[in-house]
Parts: sequence; C-alpha cells; structure tokens
Amino acid sequence: MPDTSSAASVGLVTPSTACFDTPLELACGRVLPEWELVYETYGELNDERSNAVLVCHALSGHHHAAGYHHVDDRKPGWWDAHIGPGKSIDTRRFFVIVINNLGGCHGSTGPTSVNRESGRLWGPDFPLMTVPDWVNSQAMLADRLGIERFAAVVGGSLGGMQVLQWALSYPERIANAVVIAATTRLSAQNIAFNEVARQAIRSDPEFHDGWYAEHGVVPRHGLRLARMVGHITYLSEDAMGTKFGRDLRTESPNFGYDVEFEVESYLRYQGDTFSTRFDANTYLLMTKALDYFDPAGTHGNDLVAALSPAQCRFLVISFTSDWRFAPSRSRELVDALLHADKPVSYVNIDSPYGHDAFLLPNPRYEAALGGFMKRVAAETAERGETTRSGVSG
Amino acid sequence: MPDTSSAASVGLVTPSTACFDTPLELACGRVLPEWELVYETYGELNDERSNAVLVCHALSGHHHAAGYHHVDDRKPGWWDAHIGPGKSIDTRRFFVIVINNLGGCHGSTGPTSVNRESGRLWGPDFPLMTVPDWVNSQAMLADRLGIERFAAVVGGSLGGMQVLQWALSYPERIANAVVIAATTRLSAQNIAFNEVARQAIRSDPEFHDGWYAEHGVVPRHGLRLARMVGHITYLSEDAMGTKFGRDLRTESPNFGYDVEFEVESYLRYQGDTFSTRFDANTYLLMTKALDYFDPAGTHGNDLVAALSPAQCRFLVISFTSDWRFAPSRSRELVDALLHADKPVSYVNIDSPYGHDAFLLPNPRYEAALGGFMKRVAAETAERGETTRSGVSG
Repeated sequence: MPDTSSAASVGLVTPSTACFDTPLELACGRVLPEWELVYETYGELNDERSNAVLVCHALSGHHHAAGYHHVDDRKPGWWDAHIGPGKSIDTRRFFVIVINNLGGCHGSTGPTSVNRESGRLWGPDFPLMTVPDWVNSQAMLADRLGIERFAAVVGGSLGGMQVLQWALSYPERIANAVVIAATTRLSAQNIAFNEVARQAIRSDPEFHDGWYAEHGVVPRHGLRLARMVGHITYLSEDAMGTKFGRDLRTESPNFGYDVEFEVESYLRYQGDTFSTRFDANTYLLMTKALDYFDPAGTHGNDLVAALSPAQCRFLVISFTSDWRFAPSRSRELVDALLHADKPVSYVNIDSPYGHDAFLLPNPRYEAALGGFMKRVAAETAERGETTRSGVSG
Repeated sequence: MPDTSSAASVGLVTPSTACFDTPLELACGRVLPEWELVYETYGELNDERSNAVLVCHALSGHHHAAGYHHVDDRKPGWWDAHIGPGKSIDTRRFFVIVINNLGGCHGSTGPTSVNRESGRLWGPDFPLMTVPDWVNSQAMLADRLGIERFAAVVGGSLGGMQVLQWALSYPERIANAVVIAATTRLSAQNIAFNEVARQAIRSDPEFHDGWYAEHGVVPRHGLRLARMVGHITYLSEDAMGTKFGRDLRTESPNFGYDVEFEVESYLRYQGDTFSTRFDANTYLLMTKALDYFDPAGTHGNDLVAALSPAQCRFLVISFTSDWRFAPSRSRELVDALLHADKPVSYVNIDSPYGHDAFLLPNPRYEAALGGFMKRVAAETAERGETTRSGVSG
C-alpha cells in the first residue's frame, strides 16, 4: 500500500457480503433460489441517499476497484486512478458501490460457489448470466442499501453495457449514465475473438466439461491462451509497437521456440498469471454475456426504439486507438441517443493505449469524466438542499 | 474439375520433384545435406529461357497454385484466379514456377520427411528456415531449370517477403518484383498473433515437443486454435460483419456453448479442416520465418540502405481493408524504394475482404497485376527478338 497517507486514496477497504433468498429469475429461464453479492463501498451515503454511484466492472474485473485490502498490498483496486478523494469519482462527494457480478469468481455466487441443492460446486452447471440479469441483481442490492435512485451508474467495456442496461431496465432509478469504451452489440469479429478464447478453454484436456475442480485440476493452458488473445485486443497496434517494437530479449535470434521477442514474453507472463487467478467457467460465462448483449435485437434491430425508455443524461467516452470497441461504435450509440431525443455528451479521447485506456490515468479523460461527475455532485447537493428546505419549511 | 474445357484453366497438372545433394547452408548455422523441392510449372519456357515467372507461396500455401491434379478435384490450385491462359499471370506468355517451400508439408523436404542421417522423421529437429534460406533454395532450382533471370517474381503475404528478398539476394536474377499484401517486417502485434498460434500448438498435450508423429497423434486442438486466430486476422472486421453479422444458427440463444452465431460455426469449420491437413511443425516454422523477416534489421534499421542492392522494377499492391498487413505497411516499402531511387508502381485496391483479398478475383486487382505483367511480357518478347536478331544477324 504505497500511498496510505495519500489524500487521494480511499485507503484500507473491506468487502461486504449481501445474502439474498429472493429467487432471481434469469433470462435463460432458470432461477437462482439463493445467492450472494460481494461488494465494496467508498465514501459516505448522504442522509437523502441521493449521492450513490454504482461502478460496474468488465470481463475480468471485480468489486475491488479502489484502495487496498491489506497494508502490504502492492497494487490498489483496478480503477483506483479514477475513484478516491478528489479524483474523477470523488469519494468526498459520492457513495461509490462496486459489486462482483453474479457468475464471477471473486466472492459473489458463481461457478466456484457451492450449489446448496446439489452439495457440489456449481461449476459448469451455473446458469449463463446476461447483462440484464446482472442489472436486476444490482437493483436488488440497491434496494437492500436503501438506494432508490443512483446519482450515476458508470462503467467501461462490459461495465458500460451494464450502465446502458440500467438506463433501459430501471429508467427511474438512474439520473446519469457514463458509458465508457463500450458498444451496444458485439461485432462478428468481437464474437470471433471470444469464440477462440472459449475454444481454447473448452478444448483443454484439463477442462473436463467444466468439472475440472472435481478432478483437482485447472485448464491452465486454455485460460492462458484465452488471456493472450484478449490482451492483443486490449492494446492498440501502435501501443504494442511503442512498448515492445521488434526488440529481442536475446542478443540474436535463437532459431527456436523459447521467448525471443519482448512481446512474446509479455503475453506469456500475462497469460500465466491470469491462469492462476481466474476461474475458467467464469471466463466462459462472461464472454457469453458480452456476445448476447444487444438491446436493439429485441426491438427489430432499431436501436433508437430500444433506447426510448431511458430518462437519464448520458456521457459517452471512447478512445481513439481502441480497436476492440472502436470510437465508431460509441458514435453509433451517441447518434441513436440523439435520434431518441436523449441528452448526451460525447468525448473521444486521444490515447495510444487501445481499449486498456479506459483503466488508465489520462488528463483529458479525467477532465471529461471528472467534469461530468462534478456537475452530477452539484445537482445532487442542490436536490438535497431543496429536500431539506422542503422538510424544514 | 468443373472447367476442364475452360480456356482460362491450365487444366490437369502434375507436380515435379527436384533432388539436391548440394548442401544448403542456412541462416541458423545448420546445413541441409540433401533436400528435395516439389514444384509445378504452367506454360512453356521459351528458347531464350527469359519468360520464367516464380510465384512464391504464403504461410499455408504450397506448389499447387493453378489447375487440377485430378479430374474429380472440386477446387483448383490456390491462385487459379490469377494464373492461367489469359489471366493476370498469363500462361500463354509465361513459364510459371511454384515451389513448395523447404520446411513445408506438401512434398518438399520438411518436418514430415525422413531425416536420412537419423532414419526417423525430421519432426521438430528440422532446422528453422528463413526467407533468405528459401530464396537460396529457389535459386538453386532455377539453376537446375536453366533459368538465369526471372522475368518476374510474384507473391502475396509471406510470398511477398520472398519476392523482396529475391530483389536483394539476387538482384541480377530478377527483372520485376511484384510484392502483394506484404510488409518489410512484422509489427509487435503481428508477432503477438503468431505467438498465440505457436503457444496453442506447443501447449497441446498431443504435441509431445514436436514428436507427435512418433506417438501416432497430432496436436489437433492446437492447430485448430492457431488457424482460428489466423482466420480472424485474414478477414476484415467489415467482411466478417457482412458475411456473418450477429446471425444466430439457432432460432434463439441456447444459453450454452454449442455453436450459436454463424461466425463461430465458420471458425470451427476452418479450424477443424485445417487441423486434419496441415503439419504442426511446419506451421510453427512458417510463423517463425515471418517473425524473423526484417531486411532493414541488418542495416541499422535503415530500410532505404537495405533496398539499395535491388535492380528490378517493383509493383507493390495493398488492399484497403487488410489489417494484417495494412496499406500503410506497403507504403513504407514504397516510400523506401522511392528514396532508394528504385522504379516502383503502387496500387491500393479497394476491397472489403481484408488480407484474404490477395487470393480473390477483383477487377481492379486484375487490371493492376495483369497490366503490369503484360508490360513484362512485352519487354520479354522484345528482348527475345533482340537476342534472336542478334544471333541471326
């Protein structure tokens, strides 16, 4: 925890768990009879319960977005660059909630949890989740916390899809939506990359149709390959070129298959570490949720019609070098929102870092996101004062 | 063989084999003591032996580029769209040679051949080949056929790299160079995709460090994944979108991992068929030859200096939607050739088909390639007449 004393860190945080015995009906037709959500909060909920901000995570994310769990943690949460006192999502003003999605492998009910009906791990029997399912479960946690309406729901990539779904599933419960580096539906190429990742995992002999835990193994090779493919799509070609070029790790070509170019070393390292810390069934499930997301699909492919329920204001952010969900994909959303007469701001941020840019610090990104959130905070405070004067008057 | 009677087909063809006992010294420092090249020829070599055109193949290609091997073949050779009587590379004018590269798996000496020294298959012991090695072996076949100088050397992708190497290794033996959809060096992203393919093959438990043949198995899953990744990079995002969109093969989502989207079905099919017809060690070796190709690398990264030996005319062709070797990569070559005072024409062809466009018919492509080759044929004929009149005069 290098900056414990830093005013910009939320410091040490402890996750909470909420247990639900209200059955959750899922898009696939199945029902989760009982389930748990692990989540973290940063900042204080105000008396009016009007300053809550929900941050939704992406494919390999989780609830630990800011601060540190232990004093000896080397790294903070995954979005610490943007959540904290004085940061874009300012914890002096907002009560920030980040939830590990159902089906995840960081504490919420998922494939690595015990299925109480069968007594064994859920494994591949865990139902496939969709973005609307996640949003429904998040709304139930909001009920539990007494939050009727979020000042904002914010997320990047798969997180941005959840934000959009919030605006459509619970229009009265979200005042502002911040959709970052996302898309309203995957392209065939996006699905193709997901399919390669899935086939890598599923064709690993240690996968055992998803029951690897019962065999005391993990499909490490498959997960490793899936993550390597993913990483290529997270970085821009230019960022890879700048970071690694054609630099050799060896003095001269070794004319063999050991690590030779720097980029090979990077990919193998990323794949290796991921394969020891992430669950294969969760990875499969998350990629399917990405593939299925398509709000226009149920409206005859009319995105404008699909967006009509939304009542919130939108901020859409994309990054110039993102080729996973390119700026053109964000512009499709912006155009449809404009056609649907919804208030929307759009910023395309110059960044060489590809899709990963949504996780990184960047002055213009902070100005856009921070500026928008400042206005959200000001409105929240105004509404609070109106309420208070109403009560006292 | 659907168009036996077509005037535009070279018809039935039979491969030839050339055996060499002249040791071939390789860039890796090893020596191939004896080796064979399998090749096909189309058209007739003229008396002056001045109308020979060498066509170089790409990663998964081979010597069978045009015509049919059997009357019941459903498909012709891989570049039949461009080689034949009246086609861009007109077999009424040119004597066309296509060679299976050393290290290949279609008849030339490679990992699936017997190493006469050990008596076992070469397998992973086959030396890593480089583009200059291939060009040296091709030059030795040209000697054998009595061809001192090629009217043109032509190739796409990895084939285009061999063309460029010909211009540098044997400047006096090549009159025209046609470099299609290629690059002078892979980017870090290109290397990254190759590395994922290699890791997919090498981490397959059936790989057995490359000795799979001795175990009576093939690393099918690995090859399949490698090909799936490859196919994503061969097609443009738009081409995939147009071809498959988000079309489901099923009436509604199946909420499982069976084939669901059309693009998944396509990739699995491509991967499956490839894994039964291509050798894994050859695939590994070909990707390494791609990674290593870098003529500027041995000239202090000065491409202009690296190109200075070339004496031929160049035609460089790229395709607008190719993101594997994008038009910008061809322009780097063109710019360097211009700076090096080499005669060069450049065409960027509008095509939605990505890298695969170099294999497909396309009127503007045919006009550019065919027009250039017509001028080559005219010059060759002129030179022939000059020679003949010189001889007779």
